[in-house]
Amino acid sequence: MRTSKEAKKEVFKVTPWEVSGKIDYEKLVKQFGTTPISEKIREKLKECHPLLRRGIYFSHREFDKWLDAYEKGKLVSVITGRGPSEKMHLGHLVPFLVAKSLQDRFNCDVFIPISDDEKFFVKENLTYEQSIEYAKDNILDLIALGFKPGKTFIFQDFAYTDIYKFAAQIAKRITYSTAKAVFGLKPENNVGWSFYPAMQAAHILFPQYYTKQKHISVVPVGIDQDPFIRLTRDIAEHKDFNLEKPAALHAKFIPSLYGQAKMSASEQSEGVIWLSDSEKEVERKIKKHAFSGGQPTLEEQRRKGGNPDIDVSFQYLKMFFEPDDNKLKKIEEDYRSGKLLTGELKDILIQKVNSFLKEHQKRKEQARKVVGNFVIEK
Amino acid sequence: MRTSKEAKKEVFKVTPWEVSGKIDYEKLVKQFGTTPISEKIREKLKECHPLLRRGIYFSHREFDKWLDAYEKGKLVSVITGRGPSEKMHLGHLVPFLVAKSLQDRFNCDVFIPISDDEKFFVKENLTYEQSIEYAKDNILDLIALGFKPGKTFIFQDFAYTDIYKFAAQIAKRITYSTAKAVFGLKPENNVGWSFYPAMQAAHILFPQYYTKQKHISVVPVGIDQDPFIRLTRDIAEHKDFNLEKPAALHAKFIPSLYGQAKMSASEQSEGVIWLSDSEKEVERKIKKHAFSGGQPTLEEQRRKGGNPDIDVSFQYLKMFFEPDDNKLKKIEEDYRSGKLLTGELKDILIQKVNSFLKEHQKRKEQARKVVGNFVIEK
Repeated sequence: MRTSKEAKKEVFKVTPWEVSGKIDYEKLVKQFGTTPISEKIREKLKECHPLLRRGIYFSHREFDKWLDAYEKGKLVSVITGRGPSEKMHLGHLVPFLVAKSLQDRFNCDVFIPISDDEKFFVKENLTYEQSIEYAKDNILDLIALGFKPGKTFIFQDFAYTDIYKFAAQIAKRITYSTAKAVFGLKPENNVGWSFYPAMQAAHILFPQYYTKQKHISVVPVGIDQDPFIRLTRDIAEHKDFNLEKPAALHAKFIPSLYGQAKMSASEQSEGVIWLSDSEKEVERKIKKHAFSGGQPTLEEQRRKGGNPDIDVSFQYLKMFFEPDDNKLKKIEEDYRSGKLLTGELKDILIQKVNSFLKEHQKRKEQARKVVGNFVIEK
Repeated sequence: MRTSKEAKKEVFKVTPWEVSGKIDYEKLVKQFGTTPISEKIREKLKECHPLLRRGIYFSHREFDKWLDAYEKGKLVSVITGRGPSEKMHLGHLVPFLVAKSLQDRFNCDVFIPISDDEKFFVKENLTYEQSIEYAKDNILDLIALGFKPGKTFIFQDFAYTDIYKFAAQIAKRITYSTAKAVFGLKPENNVGWSFYPAMQAAHILFPQYYTKQKHISVVPVGIDQDPFIRLTRDIAEHKDFNLEKPAALHAKFIPSLYGQAKMSASEQSEGVIWLSDSEKEVERKIKKHAFSGGQPTLEEQRRKGGNPDIDVSFQYLKMFFEPDDNKLKKIEEDYRSGKLLTGELKDILIQKVNSFLKEHQKRKEQARKVVGNFVIEK
């Protein structure tokens, strides 16, 4: 039996390849040596996407410096990538919604590397052809988000192979020991995997390589990925490169419909909303799976009210689908007071998700015609 | 003190990254599990370059199968690469003289990958720019050898970056453990180096990838490099690729002017003949350094004669510069009998080398204009 002291000291673990336990984000900021997002910064993001202004992005590295550079009229950019191991779901959109929001707000360039090579190396059963197919499909989903043509640069490693030139230069400055420590490499992993840390650093530093202008880029990223940022910041400073260290914006984990910390489609296809889901699928999944903060009976819900803090439907509205702060506040109050029932809250979410997906799917179709405006090839 | 038994069991070591001791090539063939070149095969090579018909290439893997395929009218090709860490010297030419000779004799395609990436990864002080410069310079030296345009395909990894697509597919099937064992990787080596085993296998299998035709390629290579061939033969058979296993032709080590087993320019710039050397340099180096099998005095030489088997000048004539068997035989006899003096033998070599280099340097200049006929880029 656990003592109460042990229970309090809940163990959690966050590494790029493992997330477990109940995460104490405050502690994590201290462990990782990052900086909480201040009120001053949040003030400057108040017109941005809910993910940025409602605390889901909670920590950063030198994003204040990025904002300063922007305010001084200097070049700044955003870089965030996608490993295309499957079609995309809602959780995958998080950094891209943020990137688009930063582009809208600060009119900056956005760079999106698609690491089809990474997924091919890491997923034993993913074929070369599949990784490329998913890359092409995912690119359409990303373009559908409404990035600005001429200011958005998407590339696939297996198409824009010129990236190898830059990755190789970085590879020379990463020892296998370091890669092993940061990426958890094992001897039985393949040598593509060994090389990938260099490719990823090349992605993060790509805005400076491509524009041939030393400038600060920000990487919106899950907090678990911060060790990669740190490695890349070290590389940027190396005399071979003499580049600006990238800034980072760190997100908390986005819950699956089941309410679990990190949405991982490979394990729980039913727990995620695919961008290709039909209206009926969405309705079925949310009704069936969306973890509720409500009470077991109608009577109890009316009397005690629900808990929006753990209610996935409410959290999705907060993170993604209800940008209007007043409307969100009313939903929260009504739910907490018992005025709004779980079924009603779910109906609000279902309607919002389906409206988003209908538009998204239409825009994805249209994206096929304009891919050339976004994708860089050799 | 060593016992006579120990002295007899002379220790030698041959790995891709270390060659030491007095090499017993017969033993090596057994250790490596390769096949000595038979009289039957040598018969078919009798019009080929001295390197092929005078025993310097002494062992093979399935070259008999390559010859069979040729005789049945099937596609066959030759592949041999160059790591451009410096300008080229005579020793570097060995596999290319053989490749050209096979092309002349069997009218086959020749593929020449230039691994500027490898040298960049492995040589701490070689910059990215230098590796590319040397690659471009070395390519001119290779074209100058007289390969056939339209049947010769040269590419640099840092220019024809499409090779990354193929190398990545191979990388997935080489574990770090395997790469470590075959290439002697250490934890402090960089991750570019970890990846290179895949790139090298991609080079060796490139003829089949590029032509999209499964066929047998032969790799002329120093016997110390055989472990790479073996690794690549395993990969070829993997169901992901289903390619023909490459054949190999193995060379003995070419002595430096000092008579040492393996010519390594980085250690002994004076002991090699650079393709850019002037007539005077050649004369000076051969007179000063070329290891002689002659006697200490003129009188002794006349009386006892010299030993051509250990005489570097004679060996160079045999390997490279005196294609006429009768003339070579006369030189050998005269030297052995004491009729030909060391100085006279050196003069023969000096004249031959300078005549070769004069022509080579002229052809290298001309090569600049036709690079486009040989180099493949994306």
